[in-house]
Amino acid sequence: MNEAEVRAAALELVERSRIAFLGTIGGEGGPEIKAVECADHDGLEAIWISTNTSSEHVGQLEKDPRASVYFAYHDSIPWQGLLLSGRVEIRRDSEARERLWEDGWEKFYPKGVTDPDYTVLRFVPSWGKYWQFGVKARFELSAGG
Amino acid sequence: MNEAEVRAAALELVERSRIAFLGTIGGEGGPEIKAVECADHDGLEAIWISTNTSSEHVGQLEKDPRASVYFAYHDSIPWQGLLLSGRVEIRRDSEARERLWEDGWEKFYPKGVTDPDYTVLRFVPSWGKYWQFGVKARFELSAGG
Repeated sequence: MNEAEVRAAALELVERSRIAFLGTIGGEGGPEIKAVECADHDGLEAIWISTNTSSEHVGQLEKDPRASVYFAYHDSIPWQGLLLSGRVEIRRDSEARERLWEDGWEKFYPKGVTDPDYTVLRFVPSWGKYWQFGVKARFELSAGG
Repeated sequence: MNEAEVRAAALELVERSRIAFLGTIGGEGGPEIKAVECADHDGLEAIWISTNTSSEHVGQLEKDPRASVYFAYHDSIPWQGLLLSGRVEIRRDSEARERLWEDGWEKFYPKGVTDPDYTVLRFVPSWGKYWQFGVKARFELSAGG
């Protein structure tokens, strides 16, 4: 695969993944991981995640914004994996909240789009690493430039 | 769920998960994630992972053994998630190699059980956090005691 093919395969994996795995630096300094909902994305330049303000990883990101997001597709051959490494911006402005909000989310955030427990994470990667059987390729993204 | 039920659900998730997500501290200090093969486990006390010596996360763990392993089951409701946080021991002794070795692994490690590219990671968690819809529970493990 050339680099354009790797980026296309990585983007295709992001597009079909609603759930991904967010890596943060925990309170004791070690890495932690949690499944999160990737509600939107700007190509590979930003991943938009909806989460609970009260979740421990939000407090961790307030202290250290370094993060990674891993996308996986392991149900069939060829399996695929994508690690994006970068930083998270915590967004609670109405533009970000409304961008992601979906019908039915009242069951998670009873007060609706302005619920204080609703937080948006804008994850901006600086590089990515893509795997599939026989392929392992790293590529740079604009936040790293 | 009481604590015994949480531990039982966590163990059941480990038992049916061949693939999990390993969190490490990367070269730039941020968290990184990679899918790994969990070839064996000692209850919740240790997770045994087979991997390539040449993989970047092995070098990261030589520098900083702090790690986490996340198990996920998100294909149906109720979804489940388990974060285990602890440390990795890198094992290249024949006891560890032989413990995990399986028929057919020659396709990954052509020289067989003594292949220098075959490494075993023994991950020992000190605590866990288990999620399912409506449940979030942390529990301690013996390495933390």
